[in-house]
Amino acid sequence: MTNICRLLEPIPPGGTIGILGGGQLGRMLALAAARLGLKTHVYSDEADAPAFQVCAVHTQAAYDDSNALRAFATSCDAITFEFENVPSATVALLARTKAANPNARALEVAQERFAEKTFVKELGIGTAEFARADTLEEARKAFGTIGAPSILKTRRMGYDGKGQAEVARIEDLEPALASLNGAPAILESFVEFAFEASVVAARGADGSFAAYDPPENLHANHILRRSTVPGRLNATQAKIACGIARTIAEALDYVGVLCVELFVANDGALLVNEIAPRVHNSGHWTLEACAVSQFEQHIRAVAGWPLGDPSRHADVVMENIIGEEARDWLALASRQGALHLYGKTEIRAGRKMGHMTWLSLKSGAQSVG
Amino acid sequence: MTNICRLLEPIPPGGTIGILGGGQLGRMLALAAARLGLKTHVYSDEADAPAFQVCAVHTQAAYDDSNALRAFATSCDAITFEFENVPSATVALLARTKAANPNARALEVAQERFAEKTFVKELGIGTAEFARADTLEEARKAFGTIGAPSILKTRRMGYDGKGQAEVARIEDLEPALASLNGAPAILESFVEFAFEASVVAARGADGSFAAYDPPENLHANHILRRSTVPGRLNATQAKIACGIARTIAEALDYVGVLCVELFVANDGALLVNEIAPRVHNSGHWTLEACAVSQFEQHIRAVAGWPLGDPSRHADVVMENIIGEEARDWLALASRQGALHLYGKTEIRAGRKMGHMTWLSLKSGAQSVG
Repeated sequence: MTNICRLLEPIPPGGTIGILGGGQLGRMLALAAARLGLKTHVYSDEADAPAFQVCAVHTQAAYDDSNALRAFATSCDAITFEFENVPSATVALLARTKAANPNARALEVAQERFAEKTFVKELGIGTAEFARADTLEEARKAFGTIGAPSILKTRRMGYDGKGQAEVARIEDLEPALASLNGAPAILESFVEFAFEASVVAARGADGSFAAYDPPENLHANHILRRSTVPGRLNATQAKIACGIARTIAEALDYVGVLCVELFVANDGALLVNEIAPRVHNSGHWTLEACAVSQFEQHIRAVAGWPLGDPSRHADVVMENIIGEEARDWLALASRQGALHLYGKTEIRAGRKMGHMTWLSLKSGAQSVG
Repeated sequence: MTNICRLLEPIPPGGTIGILGGGQLGRMLALAAARLGLKTHVYSDEADAPAFQVCAVHTQAAYDDSNALRAFATSCDAITFEFENVPSATVALLARTKAANPNARALEVAQERFAEKTFVKELGIGTAEFARADTLEEARKAFGTIGAPSILKTRRMGYDGKGQAEVARIEDLEPALASLNGAPAILESFVEFAFEASVVAARGADGSFAAYDPPENLHANHILRRSTVPGRLNATQAKIACGIARTIAEALDYVGVLCVELFVANDGALLVNEIAPRVHNSGHWTLEACAVSQFEQHIRAVAGWPLGDPSRHADVVMENIIGEEARDWLALASRQGALHLYGKTEIRAGRKMGHMTWLSLKSGAQSVG
């Protein structure tokens, strides 16, 4: 194991937070850092990364360009990531020069579904049933235990429903495996959930913990459509959800914001679907409904500042603006509510282009689509 | 009169708003533009302007550098100002290339106290009594009409109490005039006000108008200390205040956010103290208490977008962090509430370093100092 830098004291205003990744999450992190008087240096391999438009310094280079990474680390006082699929060699290199959070262990766990589910299960937290399914033999064995319906997923790099195939019968396994192009896979039981939810929470460098109220989330075409707070989680479930996030964060010695995506089963049980070691789409509503947003909270954590107050001062609904919906920006701007557009030049199907937030409105009273 | 560019259609996301001035107002304007997917180009004569840290492009050049101004105007789709004391030649030059708002007339009126008070009076709106006092003879004549106590002020460039002298007796006039170093002056009656208030409002490129709830403002050492909404203005006064802002904005064919500072006299009458043709410190609370802040509202107006909803979803108190108070950033960050620091490298006495906002709290429940 190489040396790991730790934050010795809070980074004062005027300091620089390095952000690896330049999408909308990096952009909103940079905006939040600016509110605290902190500068940002954004590193992305994209030429036209949205976060480049709002930072003090930016670097466009490959994520494995060690010279560029070293120069980046040297210029920053602390480093963070806006996405979980950062190569572990990159994290190791950066963490040798400056405190980098979330830590390598958290990223590794979140990058690999089998490791993630095993980790969660070992903490005594519920998940779907799961088993390795790298080969047809393994997959058949897994299907024998888990049964139908189940879902075959790549272990790495899946998002927004990519790298998944439903398995209703044992004959579906072979084509499902083929559709993953030989990538290592996991078979998971299909959870008949009542609804989906998530917890966005933060752990500070001092071990303090703060969770936002857990939203109910609605997905369409595997992409988050809407988050509603409060949703259908009752007070007990909300408390359990926050406890799950805390257990996970502490087990990982986590610093920063993380999101735990949950299935709420018909019997009310909470099952962990995924851990996102970063700010999360289902926490965007905190920008309007809380004094300290998930983005600021993450910056506070990675800068060694005290965590802010996560309490919510309004009921809130957040909806994503996806793909072609962004063409209607003028109509969206004419509506009540808080509009966010991410500065992406190209509209693509399924691409998250922005979001809208409405305060003090009941779920469904307003919608983008 | 030279040619004036007008905005023909709303600037689409991805367009660039030019901001002349790089202080905290320019910085918060840039952050608001980013939320809408607009880029910003900040122009300032300061090497280390706070707004440079959060914009896509910046230019450091003098405000009378016509080559730099022309290049700036060419690179932008629309232009605005974060401060009112922009030389009129600068505005004229910029407005020849791109739509620049607020317009030259609004800036001229706001730059000169005598023109400002005359303009307001001619609209039938109350002000303190006032008269020109450039010479000792004029000042004596003015004092004869206005009486004691009164205040002698420079007509231009005064802010935060600079360029002012109280006049209790006629003998005070000579030293008061001398203290202004021969600058053209105005004598104003001293208003015995119950409290101070302001209206922050916006007029869109389409002539639409939207006012925020008027805060009550408390000054200390001539610098804004606290804004409270709702304050002591009753509903009728609030309505009158918004009407005053609307009358002024329409008379100036104004586009953007403006602030009208008011004295509320003991008998309840509203007197205009000053017009600020820009976003204003007494509107910072809109960042937390409204879906669309004054900064976004201004960007919407100058970009030709529809104005956003100015309604307030919470009671709110805003306090400035002034001078040495900013050294306690870590203590401030540990408190509940929304902390804003402006990225200023040097702490100076009386300098606005940041502010804090508390929602749903009564006035005085929280304070910075």
